[in-house]
Amino acid sequence: MVQRLLTRSAGAALALGLMSAAALAQDAEGSTAVPADGQFVFNTLLFLIGGFLVMWMAAGFAMLEAGMVRSKNVSMQCLKNIGLYSTAGLMYWIIGYNLMYAGVDGGFFGTPGPISIPDPAADTGDYAAASDWFFQMVFCATTASIVSGTIAERMKLSSFLIFVVILTGILYPITGAWQWGGGWLAEMGFSDFAGSTLVHSVGGWAALTGALIIGARKGKYSEDGKVNALPGSSMPLATLGTFILWLGWFGFNGGSQLAMGTIEDASSVAKIFMNTNLAAAGGVVAAIILSQIIYKKVDLTFALNGALAGLVSITAEPLAPSAGLSVVIGAVGGAIVVFAVPLLDKLKIDDVVGAIPVHLLAGIWGTLIVPLSNDGTSFGTQIVGIAAIGAFTVVASGIVWMIIKAIIGLRVSDEEESLGLDKVEVGVEAYPEFASGAGRI
Amino acid sequence: MVQRLLTRSAGAALALGLMSAAALAQDAEGSTAVPADGQFVFNTLLFLIGGFLVMWMAAGFAMLEAGMVRSKNVSMQCLKNIGLYSTAGLMYWIIGYNLMYAGVDGGFFGTPGPISIPDPAADTGDYAAASDWFFQMVFCATTASIVSGTIAERMKLSSFLIFVVILTGILYPITGAWQWGGGWLAEMGFSDFAGSTLVHSVGGWAALTGALIIGARKGKYSEDGKVNALPGSSMPLATLGTFILWLGWFGFNGGSQLAMGTIEDASSVAKIFMNTNLAAAGGVVAAIILSQIIYKKVDLTFALNGALAGLVSITAEPLAPSAGLSVVIGAVGGAIVVFAVPLLDKLKIDDVVGAIPVHLLAGIWGTLIVPLSNDGTSFGTQIVGIAAIGAFTVVASGIVWMIIKAIIGLRVSDEEESLGLDKVEVGVEAYPEFASGAGRI
Amino acid sequence: MVQRLLTRSAGAALALGLMSAAALAQDAEGSTAVPADGQFVFNTLLFLIGGFLVMWMAAGFAMLEAGMVRSKNVSMQCLKNIGLYSTAGLMYWIIGYNLMYAGVDGGFFGTPGPISIPDPAADTGDYAAASDWFFQMVFCATTASIVSGTIAERMKLSSFLIFVVILTGILYPITGAWQWGGGWLAEMGFSDFAGSTLVHSVGGWAALTGALIIGARKGKYSEDGKVNALPGSSMPLATLGTFILWLGWFGFNGGSQLAMGTIEDASSVAKIFMNTNLAAAGGVVAAIILSQIIYKKVDLTFALNGALAGLVSITAEPLAPSAGLSVVIGAVGGAIVVFAVPLLDKLKIDDVVGAIPVHLLAGIWGTLIVPLSNDGTSFGTQIVGIAAIGAFTVVASGIVWMIIKAIIGLRVSDEEESLGLDKVEVGVEAYPEFASGAGRI
Repeated sequence: MVQRLLTRSAGAALALGLMSAAALAQDAEGSTAVPADGQFVFNTLLFLIGGFLVMWMAAGFAMLEAGMVRSKNVSMQCLKNIGLYSTAGLMYWIIGYNLMYAGVDGGFFGTPGPISIPDPAADTGDYAAASDWFFQMVFCATTASIVSGTIAERMKLSSFLIFVVILTGILYPITGAWQWGGGWLAEMGFSDFAGSTLVHSVGGWAALTGALIIGARKGKYSEDGKVNALPGSSMPLATLGTFILWLGWFGFNGGSQLAMGTIEDASSVAKIFMNTNLAAAGGVVAAIILSQIIYKKVDLTFALNGALAGLVSITAEPLAPSAGLSVVIGAVGGAIVVFAVPLLDKLKIDDVVGAIPVHLLAGIWGTLIVPLSNDGTSFGTQIVGIAAIGAFTVVASGIVWMIIKAIIGLRVSDEEESLGLDKVEVGVEAYPEFASGAGRI
Repeated sequence: MVQRLLTRSAGAALALGLMSAAALAQDAEGSTAVPADGQFVFNTLLFLIGGFLVMWMAAGFAMLEAGMVRSKNVSMQCLKNIGLYSTAGLMYWIIGYNLMYAGVDGGFFGTPGPISIPDPAADTGDYAAASDWFFQMVFCATTASIVSGTIAERMKLSSFLIFVVILTGILYPITGAWQWGGGWLAEMGFSDFAGSTLVHSVGGWAALTGALIIGARKGKYSEDGKVNALPGSSMPLATLGTFILWLGWFGFNGGSQLAMGTIEDASSVAKIFMNTNLAAAGGVVAAIILSQIIYKKVDLTFALNGALAGLVSITAEPLAPSAGLSVVIGAVGGAIVVFAVPLLDKLKIDDVVGAIPVHLLAGIWGTLIVPLSNDGTSFGTQIVGIAAIGAFTVVASGIVWMIIKAIIGLRVSDEEESLGLDKVEVGVEAYPEFASGAGRI
Repeated sequence: MVQRLLTRSAGAALALGLMSAAALAQDAEGSTAVPADGQFVFNTLLFLIGGFLVMWMAAGFAMLEAGMVRSKNVSMQCLKNIGLYSTAGLMYWIIGYNLMYAGVDGGFFGTPGPISIPDPAADTGDYAAASDWFFQMVFCATTASIVSGTIAERMKLSSFLIFVVILTGILYPITGAWQWGGGWLAEMGFSDFAGSTLVHSVGGWAALTGALIIGARKGKYSEDGKVNALPGSSMPLATLGTFILWLGWFGFNGGSQLAMGTIEDASSVAKIFMNTNLAAAGGVVAAIILSQIIYKKVDLTFALNGALAGLVSITAEPLAPSAGLSVVIGAVGGAIVVFAVPLLDKLKIDDVVGAIPVHLLAGIWGTLIVPLSNDGTSFGTQIVGIAAIGAFTVVASGIVWMIIKAIIGLRVSDEEESLGLDKVEVGVEAYPEFASGAGRI
C-alpha cells in the first residue's frame, strides 16, 4: 500500500451498504482469515493506537522547542504548541478533512465543510470513520508543529495562530488532496507513504518561508558576519522531546499502513517499525560520528536532530527498503543535519530548532530515494511531486505570511524581543525562581 | 453503553459457565462477527491499553503539579504523586474493588475484601478479570491525584498518604458502587460515562474540603485583601503534564466503552476519541481567547487548565454528542477555568494547581449537560447524582480530614513551610544547583 | 509460558510451511476460537505495543539519569542514552539477534550475522518476524541503559559507546542464548520470564564491573572516609523517568507472554499487568516506610528506586504469583534499595543512579524467588543460572572494560571531570542560563 487514497466518504458508504473487502477476503481465503468485523476492529485499532502515538508527538515538539529556546521564551513556546494542536484539531474538523478527502477524484481539492461521522451502529467500510479522522488530524497538527520551532522567540502569538488556522484548514489539506486524497499527483504515480513530503516538507517549506519573511532573531547574526550561538535553555527537555517524537513515529509510519487485519498487513506494520527504528539509529550514529570528526566534540543537538532527520528520511517509504538500506537512508538524513545547520547560518536563515534541515531537507531526500526500493515509482515523478508541493506551499504560505504581516504584523518589537515573549505576551515566566538572568541574553 | 455496571464476579461467572454475549452475537450475525474468544481478547486489550494510558496520567499529574509548585516543594510533590499512585494500587486491591463492585445490586456498597483473580486457564466472561481490575484501579488512583495538587506546599506527607488510604480504599469505592457498581444511582438512571462526577468531582470535592480545612499557604492572601501570585517553578513541566493527561484521557474515555469486539463498539471508541480531542481543543481555544480579552495577555496556565477542563467536561458523555456539541461542551469548560480561578481567590480558597475549577466545576458542568445529547437521562436525575455524591464526599472526607488533623495534624509548621517541604520532610532538594533562592519566596 | 524459547528462524518457517499452533487450536476448539490469521495479528500486535512501551523506557532511563547527575554532566548523559539506544538497535540487527536465537539448540550461542526478515506477503509462523526482532531489540537496549547510569559523570563518551557495541552485539546475546535462545540453561530448567537476570542483572553486573574498574567520582569519598552526597540536578526529571520506566514495564513483562490470541494468553497478559503494578507499588511503600523509620525523612530517590526495584523483582516471574505474593516480592525489592545504597557507599562503589541495587540485587532476588510460585523450577537451578550468567558477564565485561582502558582510556582527566563532561566532550551546556554554579560542585 504505497498511497493513502481514502476515497470512502461516510455518507456514500452508508448509502451503498458496500460489502467490505475484508468480507470478500474471507470468502476467498477460508477459515483461517480474520472475519470482516474483526478486520474492522483491527484497522480501527491501528488508527487509534497510531493516532494517539502521533498525538503524543505534539508533546514531543513542545518539549523539543521548549528546550531549544531561551528561558525567556519558554512559556510562549509551550503556549504556541498547545494552541496549534488545538487549532489544528478544530480546523481539520471544520474544513480540512473534507477539503483533503471528499471527492477529490484526480483533481486538486475536495469539498470543504465539516465532516460528519456515522452513528456507530451504522458505521460501515473497513474501519471506523472517526478513527480515520483522528489519525489524519494528528498528521495535520504535526505539520503546524514543525513551523512553530523555526520561527520561535520573535513571532507574536496571534500572528502565529492565525497562520496555523490557514495552514491546517486550507494549505495542508490542498496538497494532501493531490496525493492522499486521490488527486492528480496520486494519479501520476507519486509516492509518499507516510508524509516525508506531504507532512514534513510542507511544514518545512512553510517554516522556511516564514523565517525568510520575519527575519532572524536580534543578536543572532552580527553585522561583522559572526554567528552567535543563542543556546537553548534545557537540553534534557530537548532530549525528552526527541524521544517522544521517536516513539510517536512508530504510529506515524506504522499506522500509515492503514490496515492490520491480515497477516500481510500486520507483518508490514512490523517491518515498518523495524525500518523506522533502524533509520533513526542510523541518523544518530551518523550525526555523532560526523560531529566528532568535524567539530572534535559531539554536539547533542546534532545527535537529536540526527534521529529526527533519520525518521523523516524513512517516512516516504518505510516498508519497501531492506534493513540495511533503511540504515543508510537514515544515516544520510543525519549527515544532512550536520552539514545543513551551519549552511543555513551562512545564509542568515535563523531556524531556532533546526526544523528546516530535519523536516524539509531530509523530507526531500527521503522522497527522492523512494524509487530505489519501490519499483512502482520513478525519480521523475518524485521530483514533480516534491517541486509541485514545494512551489505551492512556498507561494501560498508566503502570501499568508505577508497578509498577516501587513494587517497585524508578525513580529514583536525589539524591546519586547529583548524582554522575552513570556513577560510581554504570556505574563507567566517559565522559570521564575532560577532564570532571573534570562532577559539579559 | 451509558453506565458501567460490572456485575460479573469472577467466581459467579466460573460457576455458571455463562455463554458470553459475544458468542450469542456470533450465532445471530453469522460468519462476519468476531468469534467469542476474539471478543474476549479485544475487550481485554481495550482495558489494558486504556489502563496503561490512564496509569500514565499519574505521571501527568506529577509533572503538572511539580511545575506549578515553587521549587522548594517540588521533590515533595513528586513523592506525594508516586506515593499516592502506589497507595491507591494497594488499597484498591485490598478492599476497594470489591467494595465497589462485588454484589452491590441496587444498594450502597459491596463486599469489602481483597479481590481474587481466576487462573488464566479458567478465566471466563467477556474480558480478563485482571484487566478489568487494572482499568478500574487507575481510575481510583486518578481521584487521589486530583487532591494532591490542591493541597500542595503545606500538607504533611504522612497526613496526605493516610487520607489517600481512606479515599482510595473506602470513599471513592462507595460512591463508585452507587453508579458503576450497579447501586441505587444506576437504578435511578443517573449517567456518568467515564467519571466526570464519579472520578473528577469526587477528587475535586475531597480537595475542596481539604483546602477549606487546612487553609491557604502562608503569604498567598495578604491581610489587606491582596492576592499574591506564588508562581510555579517550571512551566514546561506543567505543559508536559497537561499533554500527558490529554494523551491518557483517550484511555480514560475510550476504554470506558468497556468493549471493542464488535463494529459498533470499535466505532464507539473511535467516536469517543474524536469527541474527547475536540472538547479539549475547545477548552484551550476558549481559555486563550477569554484570557486575551479579559487580561490582555494569554496566561499559559489558563490554556493548560482549559484543556483539562474541556476533557473533564466531555467525560460524563463522550459518545452521544455530535462533534460540534463536543467543542461547545469543552469550550464552556475552558471558560469555567478563566472565571473560576479568580473567584476562588476572592473566596480565599487556595488551590495550588486549579484542580477545583478543572475537576470539580467542569465535572459538574459535564454531568449536568448529559441529557442534552443522551435521551436516556434527565436533568433531575443528573442533579440528584451530583448532589448525592457531592454531599457524601464532602461530609465523609471532611470527617477524615478532621480526624487526621486532630491526631497527627495536617499542616507543617510555619517555619517548615517557609523552608519548604523538600528540606524538612524529604531531605532532597529538587534543584540543588540552581534554585538557591527557593527558600526566599 | 515460563521461558522464551524462540526457535523459529524465519527461513526455516518459510521452508517448512508449518501450520501454526493457532490453526490447530481452532480445529480442536471449534468456532469460538480466534482464527489463525487473527492469532498472528494479535501476537504481532502484542510485540509491537510491548515493543514501543519498552522503547519508551530508553527515554525513562535518559530522564532518570539526567535528573540524577549534576547539571555539568546532563547533556552528556542525554547523549549517552540516545547514543546507546541507537547503537544497540544497529548491533542487534547486525549480529546480536541471530547470535542469541539462530540455531542455539541446547548450546552456548547461535549463528552471528544480520537477520533477514521475510517479505510481509510470505511471513509465516505465529507472529511477524520483524515484530519479534523489534521486541527483542528493545530488551537488548535496556541492558545497555542500565550501565550508563552507574558510570555517569566520569566516563568518556567514546569508551562508553565502544563498550555498548560489545555488550549489545555479543555479551548480552550470548547469555541470552543460554536461556531465551533455547541453550543449556533453558534445557536445565532455569526460569526467567522477562529478564530479571537476563536483562537487569546482566546490565547490573556489567555496571558493577565498570564501576570497580573506573573508580569513584572525584570528591565522592573523602580520604577521611566520609561519603559526600553529590545531589542530582533535577528531581522532577528523575521522577518522570521513573514513571516512564513503570509504564514501559507493562510492555516489558506483559509482552513477554509472547502471545495474545487465546483467552488464556490474554488473561495471562492481564494478570501480569496486575502483578507488575502491585510489585512496584509494594516497592514504593516499603521504601517510603523504611526510609522514614531509618532516616526520619522520606528520601524521594529511595521511593523512585523502590518502584524500580519492585519492578525488577517481579520480572523473573510476573505470571505465577498471587497478588499478595507480588506485593511482598516487590516490597523486598524496595527494602533492598534502602539497605544496599548505603552499603555500596561503605564499599566505595560509586553508582550514580543506584542501578546496582535496583537492577543487579533486586534482579537476583526476583530470580531466586521464582520457585516459590512456579512449580516447574528449583532453587538449585535458579542459583546455577544466576551464578553462571553473573560469572560470564563479570569476566567478559571486565575484559572488555580493561581492553578499552588500555587502548583509549575509560576516564576523562581530573580537570575535565571538574569542568564537567558537557563543556569538555559535548560542547553544549544543559542549562546555560541558570546553572552557572554547576562547575563548582
